[in-house]
Amino acid sequence: MATIVPMSRRRGEPDTLLEPLVTLVQDDMDRVNTTIIEQMQSPVQLIPRLAGHLIEAGGKRLRPMLTIGAGQLCGYSGDRLVPLAACVEFIHTATLLHDDVVDGSDLRRGLDSANTLWGNKASVLVGDFLFSRAFQLMVADGSLRVLKVLSDASAIIAEGEVRQLAASNNTRTEEIEYLRVIEAKTAALFSAAVQIAAVVADRPGDEEDALVSFGLNLGLAFQLVDDALDYSARQAELGKRVGDDMREGKITLPVILAFRRGSEEERRFWCRTMEDLEQEDGDFDRAQALMRRHGAIEDTVARARHHASIARDALGLFPDSPALRALVDVITFCVTRDY
Amino acid sequence: MATIVPMSRRRGEPDTLLEPLVTLVQDDMDRVNTTIIEQMQSPVQLIPRLAGHLIEAGGKRLRPMLTIGAGQLCGYSGDRLVPLAACVEFIHTATLLHDDVVDGSDLRRGLDSANTLWGNKASVLVGDFLFSRAFQLMVADGSLRVLKVLSDASAIIAEGEVRQLAASNNTRTEEIEYLRVIEAKTAALFSAAVQIAAVVADRPGDEEDALVSFGLNLGLAFQLVDDALDYSARQAELGKRVGDDMREGKITLPVILAFRRGSEEERRFWCRTMEDLEQEDGDFDRAQALMRRHGAIEDTVARARHHASIARDALGLFPDSPALRALVDVITFCVTRDY
Repeated sequence: MATIVPMSRRRGEPDTLLEPLVTLVQDDMDRVNTTIIEQMQSPVQLIPRLAGHLIEAGGKRLRPMLTIGAGQLCGYSGDRLVPLAACVEFIHTATLLHDDVVDGSDLRRGLDSANTLWGNKASVLVGDFLFSRAFQLMVADGSLRVLKVLSDASAIIAEGEVRQLAASNNTRTEEIEYLRVIEAKTAALFSAAVQIAAVVADRPGDEEDALVSFGLNLGLAFQLVDDALDYSARQAELGKRVGDDMREGKITLPVILAFRRGSEEERRFWCRTMEDLEQEDGDFDRAQALMRRHGAIEDTVARARHHASIARDALGLFPDSPALRALVDVITFCVTRDY
Repeated sequence: MATIVPMSRRRGEPDTLLEPLVTLVQDDMDRVNTTIIEQMQSPVQLIPRLAGHLIEAGGKRLRPMLTIGAGQLCGYSGDRLVPLAACVEFIHTATLLHDDVVDGSDLRRGLDSANTLWGNKASVLVGDFLFSRAFQLMVADGSLRVLKVLSDASAIIAEGEVRQLAASNNTRTEEIEYLRVIEAKTAALFSAAVQIAAVVADRPGDEEDALVSFGLNLGLAFQLVDDALDYSARQAELGKRVGDDMREGKITLPVILAFRRGSEEERRFWCRTMEDLEQEDGDFDRAQALMRRHGAIEDTVARARHHASIARDALGLFPDSPALRALVDVITFCVTRDY
């Protein structure tokens, strides 16, 4: 957390680690983006307006890039992954819209969140629309195996969201329970995003399994680091927003570790701020100080590195190729983002 | 609206008109209900608890009964419609959960609504879960044609919900715009519910088309009468809840007709109560009186009868059978419910 990373962009710096994949998938991603814009159209103006706000705000499009990249890893050169990658992004976007309603978030990707601009009602309903549209895209593709992978992932994501809601504001949440939540909420879609590439490319079962393990562990690493970043002094220095999870009383691993390793007095602090949501000026600074004292951020990132290693080894089945190297860089990206 | 229907149950009274269908589909519906209970299970306790509250509260299960009944009309005697009928009910239930959040409803089927008991967040997420589970059930069935019918219906429903939200509180809504909303929100699922029976029974295209027309027009008639009932003096006498649509400022056909046929002073009343949502004691009585003056309820029901006739004629393609007679009774049921 105290690591100082130079501000200038250079090879090996987190952002540049995405570049090989971005370059490899660029042509297909242009078509994915076109498909996304086309498929969010509707005579009901509010739908493209609201969906477009979130979709055009960018985000990295990491999940559809993984679908296309995994397709290249599998030697796939057909057209089917373009609409399916769009479908993965729609499922992700629908989840974000509903998440922001559930969390009462007022910002997303640095812009006002859709629920702030158009209200919770519109966000719920446009999320439903994007989710349905994703299924229409899958049905148009026509593979029952792809449909199974993505409908299973959707059910797991929704179940994970409810699981998280039920565990919210409980500082005694077990690490294993937290892991189950992020596996369902984040890792399941990463996994499905790359698994469908193996399915569409008609690769043997061991390669499909390898991609499932790669996606799942990459997703876990990604979310662990994401949760660490929300308490990062470095992020704050970079002008990025931090402290959202604390404001919402969301119990993530940095809090779980700081709570478990803390004194009785410290635990009372966590209960007041995260369970009772009684927060005052200076509480976020105190939270960061307690995490520093107990190595909560470093160890959250260490857990992420563990999953990153598994993800890297899962890819060991595939021969060297530009796609393989690009995906390995993505793993490194996920665990070396500025924290 | 002024029609007085005797309280005692007798042949031809609305409720008894559902009985032939209820009897015909009873065995399969027992299995549909078992499937519903099984499929809403999850290790995340909140899911079966919340879903069960709504599902066990009953409702008529009209949509899955229509699926099974249409299957009998098509001479289908296999097993596939049982899980698919459960899937239709899940899509409907997911929609209700999200509707109640969007409308801020505090009652559903005479009980506290799920959002009142467990909060909006849980309702949104459990709705997402049921929707995903519905897709898993369809994928397990394995028919791409069924998947297409139901994913198209889901997208139409969501689009219709957004359309309704965008038109809400506008007393100048065109009747045609209202019709588009209820066609999407209600009729699309009625239509899909019976269409999948023809698909699964592998019936020729003209029979499938006939069922689509039957379902669509039955759904329109059902919703028109539902919207009339919400202003019905008779419903109030029976102790049923009325006035919800007015409280929420929901623009339904009775309001559209009363507004269009009303004086300038009356239109100001509708604008104050339905657009500005400034409502006071006596406003609902005044609304009912204005509707009586302009025949708004009778004519809403007349529009419903028009669609009921089309639904009846659509079934003309099928030879006489107990299933045919039961479905014709359902049409009559939909337009003779106590208003």
